[in-house]
Amino acid sequence: MIISDPPAKVAHRIVRVQDGRWQPDDDVLAAEEPLEIRLLWYENDIARRKSIAITMRTPGDDFELAAGFLRGEGIIAGRDDILDISYCLDETEQPEQRLNIVTVTLRSGIDLDLLRLERNFYTTSSCGVCGKAALDALDIQGCQALPAGPTVRAEVIRSLPETLRKAQAVFRQTGGLHASGLFDFSGSLLDLREDVGRHNALDKLIGHQLIEGQKELSDRLILLSGRASFELLQKALVARIPIVAAVGAPSSLAVNLAETFNITLLGFVRPTSFNIYTGPERVRT
Amino acid sequence: MIISDPPAKVAHRIVRVQDGRWQPDDDVLAAEEPLEIRLLWYENDIARRKSIAITMRTPGDDFELAAGFLRGEGIIAGRDDILDISYCLDETEQPEQRLNIVTVTLRSGIDLDLLRLERNFYTTSSCGVCGKAALDALDIQGCQALPAGPTVRAEVIRSLPETLRKAQAVFRQTGGLHASGLFDFSGSLLDLREDVGRHNALDKLIGHQLIEGQKELSDRLILLSGRASFELLQKALVARIPIVAAVGAPSSLAVNLAETFNITLLGFVRPTSFNIYTGPERVRT
Repeated sequence: MIISDPPAKVAHRIVRVQDGRWQPDDDVLAAEEPLEIRLLWYENDIARRKSIAITMRTPGDDFELAAGFLRGEGIIAGRDDILDISYCLDETEQPEQRLNIVTVTLRSGIDLDLLRLERNFYTTSSCGVCGKAALDALDIQGCQALPAGPTVRAEVIRSLPETLRKAQAVFRQTGGLHASGLFDFSGSLLDLREDVGRHNALDKLIGHQLIEGQKELSDRLILLSGRASFELLQKALVARIPIVAAVGAPSSLAVNLAETFNITLLGFVRPTSFNIYTGPERVRT
Repeated sequence: MIISDPPAKVAHRIVRVQDGRWQPDDDVLAAEEPLEIRLLWYENDIARRKSIAITMRTPGDDFELAAGFLRGEGIIAGRDDILDISYCLDETEQPEQRLNIVTVTLRSGIDLDLLRLERNFYTTSSCGVCGKAALDALDIQGCQALPAGPTVRAEVIRSLPETLRKAQAVFRQTGGLHASGLFDFSGSLLDLREDVGRHNALDKLIGHQLIEGQKELSDRLILLSGRASFELLQKALVARIPIVAAVGAPSSLAVNLAETFNITLLGFVRPTSFNIYTGPERVRT
């Protein structure tokens, strides 16, 4: 049986109210559905399964989303850790249900820290969490600071939002999606993903690179269509992306992470201006 | 020992790049820190504890956030279910750590469905999740559709974003926060909460009402500063809010939920126009 990609857009009949006028109209909504990510692996020839996340996402690129999520959480290091990715094959389930479950089969012998998976990822002690602890946890997971370089011209940074906007216009048109764009250092857009969840858009972007065999993205930069939060910087760090640019503002913990791990973090990126929050040495005029 | 509220804003030194000019400047970031929500309750005089969520939030109104979260998940029905809310009192922990942990003590005899807490909230069967299942799950949790009425004038709807924007200007000024506003049907702003996470902003808003003794908000409407997702509509439903207005677009599953449970859902709300996605009978010209 062939399972087709679920729709990323959904038609809906609305009423447009403009001043006093009511106008019934057709509209297009960004699709939102839950996705469950499951792991399957073998220990001494015994199959083991674990459901590790449910995320509300826009259907499509679900395998990329799963791969990117696992990479961001440090569960896999690259494509070689994945034997297979598939939708739920249980034919007793409704087809619509099966498209909302992705099973990732891991290679034998992979070192799964199940205890860490059981806990929430930011928890590092029996009593609690703090921003410092969240940063320490990344350190413990083996995340090293990024090395110095490379540099990018300020004009390239300022050109990113317009490039992303033009590509989004042809990509999807619901007005309800967050976007993540992958660029090279000359400002060429290499890849673009959109989703109702901004973390999902970035997971899809990074997951696609991982599936294509790219382990590190140290000669790439990303542009986020909205705000830059801790979670997004964490994903960029694990993918070894040295420059993160955002159309919106960064949070305090995103800036802390960028500072600690030597990521260049740019915010409020516009055609004429932007702010440098950390790592100005990677930006040249 | 007195624990003071953690800061919602953090100062940071940045570089503003405008065309060719570099200008070092002081900036203010929206604070982002993890918050762990724990439950404490007694069964036959034996204390039981459970950590049920970690969310990345802007510090401040943490008790309201915890109360609103528990209400939205159907764990508590009102203020009477809460005996106490406090920050972590373990003095061996660092003070900064303790401000990121809130313990909610529940009344004795509360009917806690621990099995449901163990699972993720959208999961309803052994194999999977879908939008339909997510809606069914709400139904199973005892959520009834909202009754018909009341109605609101279209002019009131159009006035909401400007009212919210003005209040935000005096509230906080980082440019990095999502806002939720609570209004009466004449368009008066009754309450406002901001957070790096939009679900947190709404939890704080609803949690504050709950702590004040308001169980239902059936004569209120809310305005969301961004997009309307399934999660936000779920929280509005549990709080019995009949009208949800958003400055951004709704997702498909948000519209499904609003339709199923008879919530009026409005999107792209502007001073001159807005879209009605569901429940037009509550809007009058």
